[in-house]
Amino acid sequence: MSNITYAIGAPKPGAPLETMAIERRGLGPDDVAIDIAYVGLCHSDIHTVRGEWGDAQFPMVPGHEITGVVAAIGPEVTRHQVGDRVAVGYMVDSCGVCRHCLAGTEQFCLRGHVTTYNGLGYDGRPTHGGYSRRIVVRDRFVCRVPDGLALDVAAPLLCAGITTYAPLRRWGVEPGTRVAVVGLGGLGHMAVKLAVAMGADVSVLSRTTAKMADALWLGAHEFHATCAPSVFDGLRGRFELVLLTVPARLPLDPYLETLRVGGVLVLVGLPGEPLSFDPFSLVDNNAVVAGSLVGGIAETQQLLDFCAEHRVGAEIETISADQINAAYARVLDGEVRYRFVMDASTIGDERLT
Amino acid sequence: MSNITYAIGAPKPGAPLETMAIERRGLGPDDVAIDIAYVGLCHSDIHTVRGEWGDAQFPMVPGHEITGVVAAIGPEVTRHQVGDRVAVGYMVDSCGVCRHCLAGTEQFCLRGHVTTYNGLGYDGRPTHGGYSRRIVVRDRFVCRVPDGLALDVAAPLLCAGITTYAPLRRWGVEPGTRVAVVGLGGLGHMAVKLAVAMGADVSVLSRTTAKMADALWLGAHEFHATCAPSVFDGLRGRFELVLLTVPARLPLDPYLETLRVGGVLVLVGLPGEPLSFDPFSLVDNNAVVAGSLVGGIAETQQLLDFCAEHRVGAEIETISADQINAAYARVLDGEVRYRFVMDASTIGDERLT
Repeated sequence: MSNITYAIGAPKPGAPLETMAIERRGLGPDDVAIDIAYVGLCHSDIHTVRGEWGDAQFPMVPGHEITGVVAAIGPEVTRHQVGDRVAVGYMVDSCGVCRHCLAGTEQFCLRGHVTTYNGLGYDGRPTHGGYSRRIVVRDRFVCRVPDGLALDVAAPLLCAGITTYAPLRRWGVEPGTRVAVVGLGGLGHMAVKLAVAMGADVSVLSRTTAKMADALWLGAHEFHATCAPSVFDGLRGRFELVLLTVPARLPLDPYLETLRVGGVLVLVGLPGEPLSFDPFSLVDNNAVVAGSLVGGIAETQQLLDFCAEHRVGAEIETISADQINAAYARVLDGEVRYRFVMDASTIGDERLT
Repeated sequence: MSNITYAIGAPKPGAPLETMAIERRGLGPDDVAIDIAYVGLCHSDIHTVRGEWGDAQFPMVPGHEITGVVAAIGPEVTRHQVGDRVAVGYMVDSCGVCRHCLAGTEQFCLRGHVTTYNGLGYDGRPTHGGYSRRIVVRDRFVCRVPDGLALDVAAPLLCAGITTYAPLRRWGVEPGTRVAVVGLGGLGHMAVKLAVAMGADVSVLSRTTAKMADALWLGAHEFHATCAPSVFDGLRGRFELVLLTVPARLPLDPYLETLRVGGVLVLVGLPGEPLSFDPFSLVDNNAVVAGSLVGGIAETQQLLDFCAEHRVGAEIETISADQINAAYARVLDGEVRYRFVMDASTIGDERLT
C-alpha cells in the first residue's frame, strides 16, 4: 500500500485550496489506516488555513471532522478491524500517561495533544487533516461510528458535535432543563439537536428571524430574535444554561441576565477580542461563565453512541472536492445550512473551482 | 419594653455617623428581640451610608454582622429562647414560599429579600441595622451562635464569613484542594481561615509582601506578591479555585491562567466597573468564572457550627461607638487587620469622635 495520497490543501497562507499529493506515515504497530469517506468543513479550518490564528505550517491540509472505513491495521491494534466504520476528530495523539489523558480529557494533555492538522506529531512530522483520501491515526484516537449513523451526517459530530455535547453534559442538562442556544450555525444547530435529544426545553436566540423556521424544525421549542433589545426583558431569569456559539464579540450582560440563579453561560464560539461584563451580573445571581474546549476521546465515543441511539446527525450539504473554494466563500458569508461535508472520494486530480 | 433604642447612623449621605434614637417595631408573634453585643464594620457599610451604591434611605443605621443575646420572643417563636446567643446577617426577611426560599437560598427570594438595613420591610417600614443596642428580627432569620464561639469574633462571620464560605462549599473544596485567595482584607482573611480549616492547600496572592507574615500566621501555606508580573509564570495551571476578594478592577487573565483545567475563579469582591477577559483564557482550559452572593440562612448556620467546631473566628479590633468615624477612615485606608467590631454596649449618648 503506497503512503502517498491525494489531498486538498493550501500551499501557502491565503492561497486558494488545490489538489496536492501528500505522504502519510507508514503503518505503525498501533496505527489504523482509514479510507476517508466524508470530512466536515469547520469554520476554524478557514481561519487556520489563512494563517489568521498564527502558527500555521504550509502546505496545510485542513479537516478534523472525519469519517471513513478502516483500510488496514497495525499488528498491535485490537479495537478496530479492517472494514470498520470509524471517525477521527480534532486530535490524533497525546502522551497517554498524564492525569488528563488518564482522566479521558486528552485535549488537556500535559505534554500537549497532537492536532489532526497543522500540528507536529511526536515523531516530529507535520500532521495533515481529513481533506484527503486516506489518513493514518493511532488506534486510541479512532472512534467507532455505530451502525445506525450514516458517515456523511456523522462527520460534523467530530468537532461541532462534541464541542456542544461536552458542555451540555458537564453542566447537567436533563429532561426539562431550560437551555438557550445563541446563534444557529454549525455549532448552534448541533447544540439544538443534542439538547432536544436530551429532553431539554430549548430556545434559540438569533439576531434576526431569518432562521426561525429552521430552529423550530430542528426541534427548538422557542425562537427569539435579539435585534430588538426589548426581547431580553422577557427572558430575564429564564435559562439554566446558555450556549454562546457565535464567534462575534457580543455584550455578555444581556445574556447573563437571562440566566436563572446559579445558571451557566458557556462560551464555545471564540471571538478574537476580549469579552467584558458587569461583575454584578454574575454576583447578584450566583451565575457562571464557563469555557469549553471540544471533548476527550471517550466522550466523543459517547456522543457518537448517543447520536445513533437518538437518530441525531448534522444537517449537511455535501460537496465534491472541486467545490471547496466556493464552499469556503459561502461559509464566510454565513450561507450554509448548516455544515458542508466533502465527499472525500472525489478528491483526485480534478481541477478545483 | 420600650421600642426606642440607641443607634449609630448617618442623618444624610456623606454625613459623619452620630448617635441617634430609632424605633424598632413591636414584637410580632414570630419575632425575636436581640440585645446586640457586637457588630462588624463591613466595607459595604461605608459605600452604602455614603450613598455611593445608590438607592440609599436616610437616616441610615448600617450593620449586618450582628451577634447578641435574645432579650424577648414572640408567642409563636420556637427555635430561640430568652438568653440564647444568636446572630443576624445580611437579610432579615423573605417570602418563605418561593423556590429559592424553599431551597434555602433566601438571598434570591423572588419577592425580594429584605436587607438588614437600608431596606424596606414587608410592612413598608425602613430597616435599620446592627449599629444599635437592640434589633427585632423574624425568628427564621436568626441563627444560633454555638457555645464554643465568642460573640465578638463571630460577628464578621455573618457577612465576610458566609460570603467566602459559600463559594468554598459550592465548588467542592476538600482536603488537598489548591485554593488561592487574592487580597487579604476582611473577606480574604476569612477565606484563608475557612479554606485552611477545610484542609485546603492555601496560597495568598497580595500586591506587596506587606501582609506575608500575617498570611502565613493565618494558616496559608504559600504567599505570592503579585506586584512582580513574573510571579504569575510560576503559578500557571496551579489552582483549582481562585477567590478574588478585592473590590479593585483587576485584569482577570493572569488569574485565569493560574487555574488548573476546569478550575474556577470566584468573584466576591465587587468592582464598580466592568471586568474583561480573553475568551481563550476560559476556553483553552475549560475554566469557569463564577459570582457568589452571601449565602442562605441554613448555610450561615452551617458556617457558624463549622467555625465553632474548627475554632475559627475573625481577626478583629474592637472599638467603642465613639471611635466609629475614625474606624471608617482606617478601613478606607486599608489599615485594619482584619475587621473592626463595635461593642454595641457602648452605643449611647456619648459624643462621637
